Amino acid sequence: MSGIAVRNIERVAQDVIAGLEEAGVATVHEAQGRSGLLGSHIGPIYRGARIAGSAVTISAPPGDNWMLHVAIELLQPGDILVLAPTSPCDDGFFGDLLATSAMARGCRGLVIDAGVRDVRDLKRMGFPVWSKAVSAQGTVKATLGSVNVPIVCANAAIAPGDVIVADDDGVCVVGRLEAADVLCAARARAADEEEKRGLLAAGALSLDVYRLRAGLVALGMVEQ
Amino acid sequence: MSGIAVRNIERVAQDVIAGLEEAGVATVHEAQGRSGLLGSHIGPIYRGARIAGSAVTISAPPGDNWMLHVAIELLQPGDILVLAPTSPCDDGFFGDLLATSAMARGCRGLVIDAGVRDVRDLKRMGFPVWSKAVSAQGTVKATLGSVNVPIVCANAAIAPGDVIVADDDGVCVVGRLEAADVLCAARARAADEEEKRGLLAAGALSLDVYRLRAGLVALGMVEQ
Amino acid sequence: MSGIAVRNIERVAQDVIAGLEEAGVATVHEAQGRSGLLGSHIGPIYRGARIAGSAVTISAPPGDNWMLHVAIELLQPGDILVLAPTSPCDDGFFGDLLATSAMARGCRGLVIDAGVRDVRDLKRMGFPVWSKAVSAQGTVKATLGSVNVPIVCANAAIAPGDVIVADDDGVCVVGRLEAADVLCAARARAADEEEKRGLLAAGALSLDVYRLRAGLVALGMVEQ
Amino acid sequence: MSGIAVRNIERVAQDVIAGLEEAGVATVHEAQGRSGLLGSHIGPIYRGARIAGSAVTISAPPGDNWMLHVAIELLQPGDILVLAPTSPCDDGFFGDLLATSAMARGCRGLVIDAGVRDVRDLKRMGFPVWSKAVSAQGTVKATLGSVNVPIVCANAAIAPGDVIVADDDGVCVVGRLEAADVLCAARARAADEEEKRGLLAAGALSLDVYRLRAGLVALGMVEQ
Amino acid sequence: MSGIAVRNIERVAQDVIAGLEEAGVATVHEAQGRSGLLGSHIGPIYRGARIAGSAVTISAPPGDNWMLHVAIELLQPGDILVLAPTSPCDDGFFGDLLATSAMARGCRGLVIDAGVRDVRDLKRMGFPVWSKAVSAQGTVKATLGSVNVPIVCANAAIAPGDVIVADDDGVCVVGRLEAADVLCAARARAADEEEKRGLLAAGALSLDVYRLRAGLVALGMVEQ
Amino acid sequence: MSGIAVRNIERVAQDVIAGLEEAGVATVHEAQGRSGLLGSHIGPIYRGARIAGSAVTISAPPGDNWMLHVAIELLQPGDILVLAPTSPCDDGFFGDLLATSAMARGCRGLVIDAGVRDVRDLKRMGFPVWSKAVSAQGTVKATLGSVNVPIVCANAAIAPGDVIVADDDGVCVVGRLEAADVLCAARARAADEEEKRGLLAAGALSLDVYRLRAGLVALGMVEQ
Repeated sequence: MSGIAVRNIERVAQDVIAGLEEAGVATVHEAQGRSGLLGSHIGPIYRGARIAGSAVTISAPPGDNWMLHVAIELLQPGDILVLAPTSPCDDGFFGDLLATSAMARGCRGLVIDAGVRDVRDLKRMGFPVWSKAVSAQGTVKATLGSVNVPIVCANAAIAPGDVIVADDDGVCVVGRLEAADVLCAARARAADEEEKRGLLAAGALSLDVYRLRAGLVALGMVEQ
Repeated sequence: MSGIAVRNIERVAQDVIAGLEEAGVATVHEAQGRSGLLGSHIGPIYRGARIAGSAVTISAPPGDNWMLHVAIELLQPGDILVLAPTSPCDDGFFGDLLATSAMARGCRGLVIDAGVRDVRDLKRMGFPVWSKAVSAQGTVKATLGSVNVPIVCANAAIAPGDVIVADDDGVCVVGRLEAADVLCAARARAADEEEKRGLLAAGALSLDVYRLRAGLVALGMVEQ
Repeated sequence: MSGIAVRNIERVAQDVIAGLEEAGVATVHEAQGRSGLLGSHIGPIYRGARIAGSAVTISAPPGDNWMLHVAIELLQPGDILVLAPTSPCDDGFFGDLLATSAMARGCRGLVIDAGVRDVRDLKRMGFPVWSKAVSAQGTVKATLGSVNVPIVCANAAIAPGDVIVADDDGVCVVGRLEAADVLCAARARAADEEEKRGLLAAGALSLDVYRLRAGLVALGMVEQ
Repeated sequence: MSGIAVRNIERVAQDVIAGLEEAGVATVHEAQGRSGLLGSHIGPIYRGARIAGSAVTISAPPGDNWMLHVAIELLQPGDILVLAPTSPCDDGFFGDLLATSAMARGCRGLVIDAGVRDVRDLKRMGFPVWSKAVSAQGTVKATLGSVNVPIVCANAAIAPGDVIVADDDGVCVVGRLEAADVLCAARARAADEEEKRGLLAAGALSLDVYRLRAGLVALGMVEQ
Repeated sequence: MSGIAVRNIERVAQDVIAGLEEAGVATVHEAQGRSGLLGSHIGPIYRGARIAGSAVTISAPPGDNWMLHVAIELLQPGDILVLAPTSPCDDGFFGDLLATSAMARGCRGLVIDAGVRDVRDLKRMGFPVWSKAVSAQGTVKATLGSVNVPIVCANAAIAPGDVIVADDDGVCVVGRLEAADVLCAARARAADEEEKRGLLAAGALSLDVYRLRAGLVALGMVEQ
Repeated sequence: MSGIAVRNIERVAQDVIAGLEEAGVATVHEAQGRSGLLGSHIGPIYRGARIAGSAVTISAPPGDNWMLHVAIELLQPGDILVLAPTSPCDDGFFGDLLATSAMARGCRGLVIDAGVRDVRDLKRMGFPVWSKAVSAQGTVKATLGSVNVPIVCANAAIAPGDVIVADDDGVCVVGRLEAADVLCAARARAADEEEKRGLLAAGALSLDVYRLRAGLVALGMVEQ
C-alpha cells in the first residue's frame, strides 16, 4: 500500500472552508455530532493561529521525511499537510526549510502525529503546526510511504481532500462530502451560542437557559 | 454518594485568602509542611495568572458536565470551581459559555483534572483555568454527580471551602481550618526568603547562607 | 560513586561555545551526525532563549537538591548547570533563590531531568531552564550525590565540560574534544541551508534542490 | 452519527478467517504490507490466546457500556466485539456477566481501547480480551453510541465485518475484501520463513540468508 | 504534618473484612456507589491473589523507605501496608527482606503508589503486592514521613483502619464506618449477579435481562 | 558516528559473569552504589528468567533492524544483545527468526529500548527479552547504525563488553573493569542479607536489625 502518490484530489469549495475556519474547532466538532477530533496530544507549537484547508495526506515510515518532499509538489494554495507515521515516532520531520518551501506553494499549515523542529523560526514565519512533539531529531530519506491516500492520524480517519480545521483547541477533520452541511450546522450553533452568551453574561443561570432542572429532579438530585 | 448538592459551605475570610494569593503556590506549599500540591500534570492554560479562592467542589462522571451547571448556581464571588472526574477523562468539560456564566457570578477560575476548550477565548476573557488537557471534545448531561462534597482531585484531597491557590507553578490546597496559620507561616517564610535573596544576589554562597557545609563534611563529601 | 565534587574541569574555548550557540540545537545535532539530543520530554519553561555553555554536571537523589548548592560554588561565568536525578523525579529542585545565586556566579541556565518552580520569576529574571516538569514540590538536603562526574541526563551521556546547546527545539550536548570540529561542520551546514532556503523561497521544489527524484524512481514510487 | 445499530453485515468466509488465525498477527501484518496493527498499548489480559473473527464494531461514549448490550444481540458465532470509546477512557466496560452472554452467543473475544474487569474470571472462562487497561470502574447506560459502523480503534480504521486477528503480539485488522489475498500472502510468507528458520537454526547468518551484505558495503559500513 | 506514627487505630471486624475479600474489588466498588477505586496504574505484581485487610497507612518521601520500617512495628495480623509517596516516585521501596518481616508480623500484603523489587521472591513467598512499578532502585533512610495518618494513594483518600480490598482487577478502599453496610450491599449485588449469570448463560439477552430496550427507543436508537 | 561495527571487544571472565547472574539485579545494583539500572519501563516479556552476559551493543535508527543482523555475526557464546534506537521507537525489531539465529550463536538474551514480536515463540524457545514494548510492527533495512560502540540505552550508559544482568526486577549494567569488584561486594551483601533474613523471619523488627531507632529520635519522630 506504500509507494503511491495521488496527484489529483477533490477539494471542498473555498467559501465552505473559510466558513469552517471562522467557526473553529469546538463548534465544528459539535456541529457534526461530536466527532472528528484528533487526539488531544496533538497541539499547536504556538498559540493564536486558526486555519482551515484541504488535507494533503502523508503516510511516512518512522524517522523518514521523504514523503513530505513528495507531498509539497502536490500542494495547491490553501492546502494543509497532514502526516501520520506508520508507527509511533517523535522525530523532527519538518523544519524551517520545508516550511519555506510549503509556504512558497501556498500551504496553510501542518498537522503531524510526530515531531517538528525550528519552532522559533516557524513562529516567526507565521507557519502554524499542530504536532505531538517538538524535537530536533533529524530524519532520513530511505523508505517509501504514500501521499494522498486515506490515513489514520492521531486516532482520526482522514481522506485526502477532507477539510482540516485547527486552532488553539486542537484539530478536527470534516469529511469532504459533509463539509457544506457541517458548515450550516456550525453557523446555526454559533448563532444559538451567541444568544445564550448574552443571557449568561447578564447573570442568567445555565440551569435555566439550557432547561436542565427537570432532568435533575427526575434523576433524584438532592440539595442539602 | 452521588446526586447531592450542598448549598451552604463555610468559607475562609477574604483577607486570609488574599494573603495566600499574594504568597503564591510554592511558598504556601512549603509553609504548610510541603503538602497540598495537586499533581504537576495540572497546569495553567495560559501563563501569568495567580489566584486564590474558596473551593466549590464538583464530582462528575467522565464526559458529563451537568454538575458544572449545578455548581455555578452555588458560586459566591471569589470562589474557585474544582472538578474531579470519577474516572480519568480528558474531555472538554468547560468552555467560553460556562466561563461567561461563572464570571457573571464572580468566580475567580477553574481547576479541573480533565480538559477544557475555547482556550483562546478564556485567555481573552481573563478567566484562568488549570487543567490536565486542552480538548474540544464535547460532553453530555445525562448522569448525576455531586457538588460541594469532599473530593480527591489530581491526587489531593479537597473539601468544599478549602482555599485553592493557583499560579504558574501549579495548584495547592489549604485546609479551611488551617488557612490562617498557614498564612502566618507563609509570611514568615517570604520574609526570610527576601533576606536570603539579597545575600545571594550579592554573591554569597547558599552553602553558607543555609549553613550546609557541616552536613556535607559529616556525610563524607569529598572534593577532588 | 556518590559524594564527590570535582572542582577543576576542562572547558571549551568561549569563541567555540559562542559559535555553537549561534548555530542552535537542530544544526549542531545534524552537524555531529544526528546525535547528542536529550529526550524531547525536556523543554524550555519559556520560549525564546538560546544558550550554550560548559556543563557543570550534577547527580542528585530524587527529591534532594543539596548537590545544586554544592555545584553553584563550582560555577564559572558562562557555565550551565545540568542535573540528572538518580531515579525518575518531577520535584521542584530549583527556584528563584537558587537562580539568584547562580546568576550572581555568571551561570547561563539550567538543564534538569526533573522539575523546577517559581517559573514566573525565572522568566522575569531571564534565567532560562529546560526541564521535565514544572512543580512546586519542595526538596530536602539529606543525601549526597556528586558534582562534575559523568552523568546520563534525559537519555544522553554528558561529561563535565561538555558543551550544552539549548533553545526552543530542546537540548543538545557536544563532547568537549569534538566541539571545534562540530562548529566547523555546523557552519558549513548553515551556509548550505542558507543557499537552499533562497531556492525554496523562490519556488524551487525540494525534490529538485535535494535531488530526491532518482531515488523515488529506483524504489518504485508510483504517481496516480 | 450516533444512535445507529446495523443488523446485517457482510462477513468473510470461515476458512479464510481460520487461515488468518493460524498465521497470527505478525505474519498477517507483514503480508498486507506492514499495515493494520492497532496501537501497542492494546494488549492481552492473559497470554496464550490466538483468535480471528469478524468485527462487530462499537462506538461508545466514555464510561457508558450500553452499546455493548446492543452489540451482543447482533453477534453471530465466531464474531469478535471491537469497542472504541468516543474519547479516551480506561473504565471497565466489560466483565464476567457480559462475557457469559457473549460466549453464549458464540463470540470469540473482545478488543477494546478502554478497560475491562473481572479479569481472573475472564481467564478462567477462556474468554480472551485485548484491552488498554484493567479497571474495575463501573459504567452507566445513559447515552447512545452506535454498533456496526466504521470506527477508529487504537489508531486503526475498522469496518464491521473486517477480520480481526489477535494474539500475544497484539491486534491486527484485515479489510474484508482483502482478506483472501492477505491469506495467500501470509501463507507464502510463513513458508518462506519456515525455510529460513531451518537455515538460521543450522548456524547460517542472516546477513547471508537475507543477502544483506552488499547493501552494507554500498552505504559504507566499516568494520574495525 | 510529617514525623508522626500513630500506634493505636480502629479496625473493622474480621468477619466483615472476610466478607469483603470474598466479594472482590469490582463488586465492592459497585456496592458502595461506584467509588473507592485506586487508579488503574496500580496493578498486582503477580496474578491470582485476592486479599482484604485493615490499612496501615504510610506517607513517605520519594526514594526513602524509612517509614516502612516504622510501619512494620505497628502491624497487627491481617493488616495491609499502604504507602503513598509525597511526590511521584517509581523506586523500589520494598523487597524480600521487608516482606519476610511483614509476613512474620501477619501482614497480608502491600499496596504502594511506587515501585517494588525482588518480585520473583515475593511471588514465591506468596506475599502479594499491588504497585505502580517494578524497579530495583534502592532507597535511603534519611527523612521522616508519617505512619497511620490519612493519605491520598493513587488518587484515593485512605484513612488508617479503612478496609483495603485487592485482586487482579486492582485495589478498592472502603471507609471503616461504612464497611458493614457495604458488605450487605455487596452480598445483595453478588446474589443478583448470580441469578443474571444463569439467565445470560442460557442465552437470554442482557437487553432483556436488564430491561434496556425501552430506554433505547426513548432516545431514538435506530436499527438499520 | 554511525556505520561502524567493531569485531573484537574485551569481555569479562565467565566466572565473574556467572557470579553476577547468581546475585541478581537488585543485589548487583546495590553492590555498586545504587547505580547502573536501566529505566523501569524496560521489563521482561515473560517472568522467571535471570541472565548475565557481555553486552554486544547496537545503535539503530527507529524502525530499522539492519544492525541486529550485523551484530549477530559478532556474537560469542554467552553474549547479550543490547539495542538502543537513535530516537524513541516501539517497533518490533526482533522476533523468532532472529532469536533462532542468535541462539544458534550462543546468545543469552536481548535487552532493547524498543519493541519485539513473536513473544509466544520467544517464551517457548526460552529466549529471554527485556523490552519497552511488545509490537508486531515490522522494520526495514535501509539505514546504517553501529555495533559495539558506546550507547545510552534506557537512560543508562553501556559500553561493549560491559556485563548485563537481567531478571524479573529489570536490567542492570556493570562496567567491565569494575565487574570483579562489584561481584565481591555483591557476595558480601548477599551474605549479610541472608543473616538478616533469618532474624526478620524469626520476628525481629527491622528497626532493631538495621539500628534505625536512634535516627528517628534524633529527627523528632513522635509516636501518638
